[in-house]
Amino acid sequence: MQTVINQIPKSSYDEEEEEAEAVSRRIERVRRHLEGVPYCVRTGQVEMVACARVNLNVETAALSGYMRGKHRDIQEKVYEYFNKKPELQTPAEILKDDYRELCMRQLLGLVREAGIRPFRYVSEDPAKYFAIAEAVGSIDMSLGIKMGVQYSLWGGSVINLGTKKHRDKYFDGIDCLDYPGCFAMTELHHGSNVQGLQTVASFDPITDEFVIDTPNDGAIKWWIGNAAVHGKFATVFARLKLPAYDTKGAADMGVHAFIVPIRDMKTHQPLPGVEIHDCGHKVGLNGVDNGALRFRSVRIPRDNLLNRFGDVSRDGKYTSSLPTVNKRFAATLGELVGGRVGLAYSSVGVLKIAATIAIRYSLLRQQFGPPNQPEVSILDYQSQQHKLMPMLASTYAFHFATANLVEKYAEMKKTHDDVLIADVHALSAGLKSYITSYTAKSLSTCREACGGHGYAAVNRFGSLRNDHDIFQTFEGDNTVLLQQVAGDLLKQYRAKFKGGAFTATWNYLKESMNTYLSQPNPVTARWEGEDHLRNPKFQLDAFRYRTSILLQSVAVRLQKHSKTLGDFGAWNRCLNHLLTLAESHIESVILAKFIDAVQSCPDPSSQAALKLVCDLYALDRIRDDIGTYRNVDYVAPNKAKAINKLTDYLSFQVRNIAKELVDAFDLPPHVTRAPIAMQSEAYTQYTQIVGFE
Amino acid sequence: MQTVINQIPKSSYDEEEEEAEAVSRRIERVRRHLEGVPYCVRTGQVEMVACARVNLNVETAALSGYMRGKHRDIQEKVYEYFNKKPELQTPAEILKDDYRELCMRQLLGLVREAGIRPFRYVSEDPAKYFAIAEAVGSIDMSLGIKMGVQYSLWGGSVINLGTKKHRDKYFDGIDCLDYPGCFAMTELHHGSNVQGLQTVASFDPITDEFVIDTPNDGAIKWWIGNAAVHGKFATVFARLKLPAYDTKGAADMGVHAFIVPIRDMKTHQPLPGVEIHDCGHKVGLNGVDNGALRFRSVRIPRDNLLNRFGDVSRDGKYTSSLPTVNKRFAATLGELVGGRVGLAYSSVGVLKIAATIAIRYSLLRQQFGPPNQPEVSILDYQSQQHKLMPMLASTYAFHFATANLVEKYAEMKKTHDDVLIADVHALSAGLKSYITSYTAKSLSTCREACGGHGYAAVNRFGSLRNDHDIFQTFEGDNTVLLQQVAGDLLKQYRAKFKGGAFTATWNYLKESMNTYLSQPNPVTARWEGEDHLRNPKFQLDAFRYRTSILLQSVAVRLQKHSKTLGDFGAWNRCLNHLLTLAESHIESVILAKFIDAVQSCPDPSSQAALKLVCDLYALDRIRDDIGTYRNVDYVAPNKAKAINKLTDYLSFQVRNIAKELVDAFDLPPHVTRAPIAMQSEAYTQYTQIVGFE
Repeated sequence: MQTVINQIPKSSYDEEEEEAEAVSRRIERVRRHLEGVPYCVRTGQVEMVACARVNLNVETAALSGYMRGKHRDIQEKVYEYFNKKPELQTPAEILKDDYRELCMRQLLGLVREAGIRPFRYVSEDPAKYFAIAEAVGSIDMSLGIKMGVQYSLWGGSVINLGTKKHRDKYFDGIDCLDYPGCFAMTELHHGSNVQGLQTVASFDPITDEFVIDTPNDGAIKWWIGNAAVHGKFATVFARLKLPAYDTKGAADMGVHAFIVPIRDMKTHQPLPGVEIHDCGHKVGLNGVDNGALRFRSVRIPRDNLLNRFGDVSRDGKYTSSLPTVNKRFAATLGELVGGRVGLAYSSVGVLKIAATIAIRYSLLRQQFGPPNQPEVSILDYQSQQHKLMPMLASTYAFHFATANLVEKYAEMKKTHDDVLIADVHALSAGLKSYITSYTAKSLSTCREACGGHGYAAVNRFGSLRNDHDIFQTFEGDNTVLLQQVAGDLLKQYRAKFKGGAFTATWNYLKESMNTYLSQPNPVTARWEGEDHLRNPKFQLDAFRYRTSILLQSVAVRLQKHSKTLGDFGAWNRCLNHLLTLAESHIESVILAKFIDAVQSCPDPSSQAALKLVCDLYALDRIRDDIGTYRNVDYVAPNKAKAINKLTDYLSFQVRNIAKELVDAFDLPPHVTRAPIAMQSEAYTQYTQIVGFE
Repeated sequence: MQTVINQIPKSSYDEEEEEAEAVSRRIERVRRHLEGVPYCVRTGQVEMVACARVNLNVETAALSGYMRGKHRDIQEKVYEYFNKKPELQTPAEILKDDYRELCMRQLLGLVREAGIRPFRYVSEDPAKYFAIAEAVGSIDMSLGIKMGVQYSLWGGSVINLGTKKHRDKYFDGIDCLDYPGCFAMTELHHGSNVQGLQTVASFDPITDEFVIDTPNDGAIKWWIGNAAVHGKFATVFARLKLPAYDTKGAADMGVHAFIVPIRDMKTHQPLPGVEIHDCGHKVGLNGVDNGALRFRSVRIPRDNLLNRFGDVSRDGKYTSSLPTVNKRFAATLGELVGGRVGLAYSSVGVLKIAATIAIRYSLLRQQFGPPNQPEVSILDYQSQQHKLMPMLASTYAFHFATANLVEKYAEMKKTHDDVLIADVHALSAGLKSYITSYTAKSLSTCREACGGHGYAAVNRFGSLRNDHDIFQTFEGDNTVLLQQVAGDLLKQYRAKFKGGAFTATWNYLKESMNTYLSQPNPVTARWEGEDHLRNPKFQLDAFRYRTSILLQSVAVRLQKHSKTLGDFGAWNRCLNHLLTLAESHIESVILAKFIDAVQSCPDPSSQAALKLVCDLYALDRIRDDIGTYRNVDYVAPNKAKAINKLTDYLSFQVRNIAKELVDAFDLPPHVTRAPIAMQSEAYTQYTQIVGFE
């Protein structure tokens, strides 16, 4: 074989191999420094021996304590309640109609029996509300969404878009579920483009009422949660039309929200003029009863206009504290940003469950091995580490990023600070979009990584994926939300050159745009030492550099194209570029928060573990987009190769503490539930479920 | 705004912009040359005007005729049969047990009523068998798999692993479904590692029987299709143990296949010693009754050994035409390669359905637009083109690649040519793996790209994804199969340096390895003209160059690491590299077939359309892995940027003929079924399904 290889022509890849050896030697040094762990000749990896654990001694309890939010108690109350109520657990097979009733019973049990009343926290203590939502969602995502529709969407719209009279009239009924309600925004023809909604609310000054109408079938309210079966009310978004005595016809005041009773309080029959149909089976979340609503001259009292941002007087005059239709619309939608915060946060909860199941099974499962030796755990394979370890690192990264978002949101609800509001809006759009897309992909990866047993419904990847899938779409389509992030970046970028200020999250751009936009340093572009690559400054600089060049270059392109194509055309011509910019920015924000979290960790062993995980998160992302860095020579070829090698190596190191890292998520077995993820006798539990004794 | 921009520091991205302009001008020239289509100022894209269509005038019928296989007639017979049998259509909601009975009725109807008898084609005319499987799978994937279990796995194992006596005894019963059967290979603890199976078949010379035993619960046969409800027989894979008079205990002859009756022919009760449980709900394919089997001293006649590759005489002597356990094992598994061919082929069928639904809806759906103008189709957005157009191009690429694979497989079944056998084995492993992974990801992309209406079960992305998901795992886990491809490449690579020959598929490596491994040409690395980038020679060279460097470099790395880590350890150390190599090779093979198909197309308008689609396929793949090309300076920065721009532009051009391209898949509306994909009145059909009149 030696002679064979000698015949191979000399190529650039020989050099790579030499460089790779140099990197390996250095890595070897760090490795010895950090751990002193012997290589395993069998798997080409460090042996899973006791000393590895002793040397990077992760104390699950300490790490878990650091991760744990303030509201763990109420989450445990949720877990315990459902654990003691087997009759409220969702079975593997359930018909749609039964599922919806079960989901309603689950919600009623939570509120009326377990005594958990989420509604007050929506405005008073959002962090607590999101903690409840995450826990409830991990019992059953349908339940999480059903709860969100009731309290965050229907309840939230009444509280946030209405005034005291609405709160006084509806709060208690919403709180105790006597008034189940819907949030009727989306129409058949309009989802993302809310300003294009066509449902009409015309003021009738004679009867002092609004008349709600569906002008055409494209305006049928669609996908309305709680509408098909349980809802008694709906917050209906419609174009407010006022009689215009000086012009012909009515004046369109733009989209407003109205409380519309849809079913009789006693008979539960649809009210006159309200036609309700069931949207039918969905890919997932079949415990939620989404319905379609068509209105035919449905009359509601004038008081039912949610009038915080705009009101109509008895004589049909419009008043508002906000000057334009666009500003009122922005204020209205702005109040709904909590939904996005909640989805980002809950999506991380879903990712934790899936990562835990996939990683525990990958440690249990053995397949193939060296000749005449026992088989090895599939997590010992480099390919499995590649699938799961960057995912685990991302889960940690997202945990800290969303915890921070929730804090900011709570602060915003208290202070109503303008800068904070702008920051939370863009940040929630970006994190919701980025995290839910990542989680959706990861759920498929987990199923695939767990092979055949990952396909058993009881091991949960199917329902997690199907239920979570729509997180990418509702409360703002991810592709649309990323454009909001890009738009906000551009706004701030332009303001900067007019002497304005960046809001907190984008502040790094102000400080560093000029630095980043100078030519990359050809010396540092070649640095490949592990101290350098694992230095948070290098990592953050690289992330921010990318965001900066993407931002600057897209601004120039937009400027150029808008001259010939107009703003809309120019935006579309640069759309892929803009989406990449938005993702790059969000990744920068996530990394910065993760680095903060590592630095703030008081327990040294947890800190060491988190540092390792954070390095993997950062380098994996740089590796994924290495083409961009290479293209501008920010990273030289030798460095690109060193990053690739080191990322594989960090994946392997994280694998050695993977068990502790998922244990630190602190998910009880009745929450993870998948038999293949049980911490003892997993196979036995699995065979017993199927019927073997 | 102009002054603002002037303050931006000069950066490398200004250059990009200048280069981009140069590319734009050139593209503009080609565009005018090809189409003479005016830009649309509204969307920054070419207007969907008649002239665009006239200039790239795709005749769907001609294109469709070229795509259509020889066995379209029997596919139409399948479609028609089920179209006329509404009682055999799978409803949106069905309980697992009912679903399995329905699936069996569907199969019985197909065979006994429609008169389609697939079994004979398994060996006589495989192309026809795969055409039936694809059509049946597009009625319901559970039915496709149920049919595959019966005819390809159970039936195929009897025909291919047995001898004349088995054919005589079982053919008719299998053919007409009197003998429903299973293929019992996988065990609880062993899926991919088939040689690690633990079920035992001990020969008892006294009674002239084999005794089948499950030695421990890890050896329970798991996921066995047709076992939970309908199977009467199973081909059981077990270690053959023969009495060894000269040594202690029994001699283990390795894994062999045995026909084991599992249920009574009359009462349908499990036979003594056979314990059967239902594996329960799966993520998808719930029409298939997967079961788990535990054997306790189940006795079968000696004749039930499928003895084509190894036999046991009356006195317990073992005979075989093949010299070693490994060769017999390889021959046994080799006969099962048809399953992989079928999955690759059917997976393309699934991708066609999904792409058709997503693209038709994206043409229908309008959302947002320039101020005071009508909304635009979402397929006019660059982001949506980015999601769907390379996918459409891949669908075409896979169509030709799998059609070719099926031809080769049919040829192999006729000639039993050794070189062809090796070729088909590696090619089927590679295409099955690559295509099913791609399709699985695409199904999620389609759902997401269709937003909320993509989440309605009736629009099919959920069931397509859930049913198809396991295509990535069964008949060979994709990660394992890619390693087989890499292993085969390495074997041939080593043989080459010993003077051996490459088999047909890898032949390009022989011709070109040395060329590819010389230093990249710094002049061509900068060529960015569209004539060059759209030249098949450039594209194929680039694909093959990548494969060649990956192959050569991994061979060197394996050689080096095996000295310290052993073969297994070295393989694992290079695993990610090996998987990339395998994917790169498969992409090269797919592109080569696509280029052939373009060149062979007799109809000029179809050829022009296919050329465009093929260019998009090639450039999109190069763009996706631009880091690799940049790292070895095969592509200079200016060229990388030109590829990026041109790929976006080709996506946009393909969008202009996207309707015709999906129409050419020739899927009748009762096969696509999703209301949002109907070619007229889609929204109306959708609202009617929900109950509106």
